[in-house]
Amino acid sequence: MEPCSDLYIRRIAKYYRYLSHLKQRGALRVLSDELAVYMNISPSQVRTDLGKLAVGQSGYGYNVAVLTTEMEKFLGINKINKMVLIGAGKLGQALLCYEGFYHKGFRFGAAFDINPKLQGKTFGFLEEPVRSMRELKPYLAKNQVQLAVLAVIPESVQAVTDILVASKIKGIWNFAPYYPKVPENVVLENVHIQESLLQLAYRLSNSN
Amino acid sequence: MEPCSDLYIRRIAKYYRYLSHLKQRGALRVLSDELAVYMNISPSQVRTDLGKLAVGQSGYGYNVAVLTTEMEKFLGINKINKMVLIGAGKLGQALLCYEGFYHKGFRFGAAFDINPKLQGKTFGFLEEPVRSMRELKPYLAKNQVQLAVLAVIPESVQAVTDILVASKIKGIWNFAPYYPKVPENVVLENVHIQESLLQLAYRLSNSN
Repeated sequence: MEPCSDLYIRRIAKYYRYLSHLKQRGALRVLSDELAVYMNISPSQVRTDLGKLAVGQSGYGYNVAVLTTEMEKFLGINKINKMVLIGAGKLGQALLCYEGFYHKGFRFGAAFDINPKLQGKTFGFLEEPVRSMRELKPYLAKNQVQLAVLAVIPESVQAVTDILVASKIKGIWNFAPYYPKVPENVVLENVHIQESLLQLAYRLSNSN
Repeated sequence: MEPCSDLYIRRIAKYYRYLSHLKQRGALRVLSDELAVYMNISPSQVRTDLGKLAVGQSGYGYNVAVLTTEMEKFLGINKINKMVLIGAGKLGQALLCYEGFYHKGFRFGAAFDINPKLQGKTFGFLEEPVRSMRELKPYLAKNQVQLAVLAVIPESVQAVTDILVASKIKGIWNFAPYYPKVPENVVLENVHIQESLLQLAYRLSNSN
């Protein structure tokens, strides 16, 4: 398959979330019209998007289970992904407690924090107590971890990233409002919380 | 000014964050080349972007203070924005403690939660103790609030949104993985945390 645009991948992720919701509710089939309303795009765009996954409509709409499975294959989430969390403050704890990740196969194998008060505590779906930052390097040397989640203060982002890169981490999911530099072979995904608020402020101040 | 694209607004927000950082460090001027590296775009794109704000380069690069002020005007953040938080769980608490919002003029006037254990507690920059959900409607009737931040469970998003809309809230910043329906005159900004993780998973599984 040719490389897909970021926008396409985001749309598939959005369909996927809705389909998971339908599946949970016991729905067997879904129409492109219903998906179009949810996605706020045209039904023909929906058919083009899903056609790329080689899933067709048969009879009454799409088969929810088949579509979900194809999307999981496409997104690469049909296996368990072990993650580590760096920074177990309030935001980190919120991520550890989020069952949506756990149910999609994203498991926090370990969490690390510089705060001794947090070390030894467990939160949500975290599989063992929070460790000290000194244990990060040895842990990554011993355990196969592909993905690291960063919920540290902006000032620490680059230093922690450098440790992760040196430890051969493949992907970094960064929640801090500072975007670190990574080599080309490391996948970095920044969550743009501040930008989201600023965009909202812009739209608010231009809506009146 | 003609309406700006979402991508342009997001870019301005990203410049703005970097400039705030430069300003804090005491930098007086910045070159388009430096901004281009940070933004991962071409220097000529930087000049086009900033030209739209009617800020030119004079002498050695851009004046950081002038550029920051123009961006604040553009984004509509050069005034205090009172917000309320609905849902004071771990994610909500993380948002209350985030000084980046506070320093940009975004103030949490009140927070509401259905959990009695959280009611009466204060967190971070929250200006008063957490209130019960029953107080939400009367509070909004008495206080001028433009912006509500949603950090509730997905199942509650639409019901809470309906209360906010009925109380004439102008903007909703939603962190829950369910996107509520709002009338056209209400600005809704969803933070796509799950989509971000799924996109990362896709890029990871296609990077090898």
